[in-house]
Amino acid sequence: MASGTKNNDKKDRILDAAVRVFARNGFFNSKVSEIAKEANVADGTIYLYFKSKDDILISLFEEKMSQIILQMTENLRGVSDPREKLRICIRTHLEIMKENHDLAVVITVELRQSAKFMKEYDNRPFSRYLKILSDILQEGKQSRVFRADLTPGMLARALFGMLDELSLWLVMGAAKNKVDWNKAHKELTEFFLRAVSPGEPTQQENSVPDSR
Amino acid sequence: MASGTKNNDKKDRILDAAVRVFARNGFFNSKVSEIAKEANVADGTIYLYFKSKDDILISLFEEKMSQIILQMTENLRGVSDPREKLRICIRTHLEIMKENHDLAVVITVELRQSAKFMKEYDNRPFSRYLKILSDILQEGKQSRVFRADLTPGMLARALFGMLDELSLWLVMGAAKNKVDWNKAHKELTEFFLRAVSPGEPTQQENSVPDSR
Repeated sequence: MASGTKNNDKKDRILDAAVRVFARNGFFNSKVSEIAKEANVADGTIYLYFKSKDDILISLFEEKMSQIILQMTENLRGVSDPREKLRICIRTHLEIMKENHDLAVVITVELRQSAKFMKEYDNRPFSRYLKILSDILQEGKQSRVFRADLTPGMLARALFGMLDELSLWLVMGAAKNKVDWNKAHKELTEFFLRAVSPGEPTQQENSVPDSR
Repeated sequence: MASGTKNNDKKDRILDAAVRVFARNGFFNSKVSEIAKEANVADGTIYLYFKSKDDILISLFEEKMSQIILQMTENLRGVSDPREKLRICIRTHLEIMKENHDLAVVITVELRQSAKFMKEYDNRPFSRYLKILSDILQEGKQSRVFRADLTPGMLARALFGMLDELSLWLVMGAAKNKVDWNKAHKELTEFFLRAVSPGEPTQQENSVPDSR
């Protein structure tokens, strides 16, 4: 089956096949031979492009995160209002998850299955993703569109946590008949923008006891 | 080593040992025999209490989630203001994660490693946890302390996503020298309360394009 020709088409075909196999069987239960079969290449062909199953997962994540980042960057072009920028980032994240069910499963569930990945891998695409969000928060903070007391890096992470959890929820079908993506998208956008907008602190803020 | 006596002490000892082993080696790389060694019991003893490694993970999760829920319920006793209740839930979640590093690793990272767990297990303790949060949101919505247009179930999930992601961030040490738990706790509380408080919608809300 394998032509032996190294080309990006074949590499892409293997990555696309891996998304489907990981989504179907889970990362740990998936075998390289299954990915080869799904991609219609010989087992050995996989090893021309990837060192291991872990390596496939990392390549997959990097490629797909790069797509998300590229899409976000494109959608942000020409936009100057940090609030509108945040709306665009939230919409882009949820739309990509919505349109690619298997990818969403891999990113929200399977990625976390590799302890190696979580602990040892210097997760650059994820850092770039977070930087887009925290730069927008920083910009809005400086131009006083957002609150002066917010911590951009932490809130970027918090926003990712919300988007990731809600994508997981929507993707796993638990909420299939309860909440639609459109509603989730609108509510989450409003929720996040309210939280970062300037204004009086919430009542009784001072009554929050210190964390022990 | 095993006395053969079935008692909760021994079961607890096995569960505590499992937390340490899973946190250290990751769920998939951990062997039942390592847990037995760590708990100072014979391998066979484990199977008196648990069917499999998956079963240990599920028991662990159920027991620890029950502890979190119990602690939240205790802390909420006598409190009537939904805003204060939310503050208490956020504080309780972060404090328990902060005080139990290994548990936090298991809950935030390792739990997601069992595709079986994620897909097949009817996650009742997690549902109970979410219900505490969504009931508070519902209550605040009815008493007009919170916005009338919020969806309690979805925002409970969003709040969990933020808390889980920030716990992971803090626990993994990535932010060891950048943000402290105290600051994270205060900022997250303020963030969430602002987002659910009533008031004018954010400017340009109507300019949010529909999700395609």
